[in-house]
Amino acid sequence: MDKKFVAVIGGSQCSKEEAQLAEEVGRRLAKRGAILVCGGLGGIMKAACKGASSAGGTTIGILPGDNRQAANPYVQIPIVTGLGEARNVIVVKSVQAVIAIGGSYGTLSEISHALKNDIPVIGLNTWSLSRNGRQDKSIIPAQSPTEAVAQALALVTSPKSKE
Amino acid sequence: MDKKFVAVIGGSQCSKEEAQLAEEVGRRLAKRGAILVCGGLGGIMKAACKGASSAGGTTIGILPGDNRQAANPYVQIPIVTGLGEARNVIVVKSVQAVIAIGGSYGTLSEISHALKNDIPVIGLNTWSLSRNGRQDKSIIPAQSPTEAVAQALALVTSPKSKE
Amino acid sequence: MDKKFVAVIGGSQCSKEEAQLAEEVGRRLAKRGAILVCGGLGGIMKAACKGASSAGGTTIGILPGDNRQAANPYVQIPIVTGLGEARNVIVVKSVQAVIAIGGSYGTLSEISHALKNDIPVIGLNTWSLSRNGRQDKSIIPAQSPTEAVAQALALVTSPKSKE
Amino acid sequence: MDKKFVAVIGGSQCSKEEAQLAEEVGRRLAKRGAILVCGGLGGIMKAACKGASSAGGTTIGILPGDNRQAANPYVQIPIVTGLGEARNVIVVKSVQAVIAIGGSYGTLSEISHALKNDIPVIGLNTWSLSRNGRQDKSIIPAQSPTEAVAQALALVTSPKSKE
Repeated sequence: MDKKFVAVIGGSQCSKEEAQLAEEVGRRLAKRGAILVCGGLGGIMKAACKGASSAGGTTIGILPGDNRQAANPYVQIPIVTGLGEARNVIVVKSVQAVIAIGGSYGTLSEISHALKNDIPVIGLNTWSLSRNGRQDKSIIPAQSPTEAVAQALALVTSPKSKE
Repeated sequence: MDKKFVAVIGGSQCSKEEAQLAEEVGRRLAKRGAILVCGGLGGIMKAACKGASSAGGTTIGILPGDNRQAANPYVQIPIVTGLGEARNVIVVKSVQAVIAIGGSYGTLSEISHALKNDIPVIGLNTWSLSRNGRQDKSIIPAQSPTEAVAQALALVTSPKSKE
Repeated sequence: MDKKFVAVIGGSQCSKEEAQLAEEVGRRLAKRGAILVCGGLGGIMKAACKGASSAGGTTIGILPGDNRQAANPYVQIPIVTGLGEARNVIVVKSVQAVIAIGGSYGTLSEISHALKNDIPVIGLNTWSLSRNGRQDKSIIPAQSPTEAVAQALALVTSPKSKE
Repeated sequence: MDKKFVAVIGGSQCSKEEAQLAEEVGRRLAKRGAILVCGGLGGIMKAACKGASSAGGTTIGILPGDNRQAANPYVQIPIVTGLGEARNVIVVKSVQAVIAIGGSYGTLSEISHALKNDIPVIGLNTWSLSRNGRQDKSIIPAQSPTEAVAQALALVTSPKSKE
């Protein structure tokens, strides 16, 4: 349990550019020794798992449905919840930092649950928020996969983070 | 089951002004015959239940914890989930329209889960969103409780809505 | 919240005799002023809701899927969870006593979750348990719907019960 | 994903004899290359994780609470659900066979959810069931840890099993 756990979140469908970002994020997380947690399906999740696997990392997929076969082929440890979108809560609670890449409302729900739980969120081309007219800066922007991974891992060890 | 179910979401702590908005939303929903669903706790949830109860309406509280006594005193039907924040998913799935008032990250997670499920969201002084630099207009702004309730109920019957 | 909440649990398919028991249990719960909670689907759940509705009672269905239309026609308040069988936990946590009629493994899971939470379980022609060779008498047997309802409601008010 | 996933379930408090059984089950699962899934806490769960770890196996703990630190020290991969007992459903859905050792109502709920999902359950000194007066033989009895592990792994590969 001295390993660092980081989630990569984003759409189950994504552009080629987003997939490249996710794959690179996965690869760098693995090289830095972190364990990758995701929702286990396609798009960003698959690309991130592919990257992590290619670098010898461990990949965990928290699946929404009842069927372990629904996991993308790069998921090594499928967790089968049968909970539908409520599994999004588990994805973020199981990690110490979140990297969000693009994404739609499902991703936004994961960002929200993470922020609610004081789990740091790094964003690559993703949502930005304002509340009652004022900008909310809780999502930490990154310009590249390298920067996203560096920030995520730095925040895990920061005394401000939950661990 | 021909009744309309509408959620009122927002912080468990809120300003006096927000509480007044929520109470008026609750009252108007009840007067229009809709059933109020909420997270069952304090702040916006309590004010909305108070308003609905005062007008003879039905109030349902989907509680995060294990104790029915945690419901605010205006909840008539407490649903005890023990699921923590994952209960947010149930609040929105159980209704045909959502009215968001103020709120923090928990509220944002409910907005996200609603939009993910194509359930219309009306906003009163709440979050606004942009994705990858472009504004997302899915949250329908309202200027008053009366307008919020009118829009919510109109969207329940709209052929575009899920029912 | 001074109303008593009682769950009726059992198979989504059942014999005609079991359905008659469930309908009578529902009717008597309603006549005694209790609110009926169930899993919202067919079989025992439908029969119990039918009985309660016929006597002017309130019926709540905690649905496993994403579609409120899946509720049986006698459910007045559908709670849409999308959680699959994990919704069984909510059915029992939301009540102060459980009446089990027949049933298979889903019913057994609800009985188990209830006993785990110190919620009394009354049984009509249902499971019996032994642990490590010794009989477990936690399920209180009843011989008729009248007796089952009387026992359930007595246990809600008992100082030993959770409320 | 060609690894076999097996759950070991049982009480968070247990006798010394039960702990020895669980530790031996964990060790044998690891030696046979299976991945151990459990509820992540103490008692049977801790003993099984200890056994698996001692033999170089992988251990996954599906935690009920919000705190990864609640995992026993032999859990390598904590999954943090915040779902309370609803996490029991995830423990069994995530595996291809279940070994139950002793246990109380929480364990019985896991046995029930497994049988509901056609996941084979092997029992060591645990619950036995009868339904409506007739014995239910779905829990496959084993006489020793070796036999329990052999039966569990045989059932994973059996064409009758879900995979």
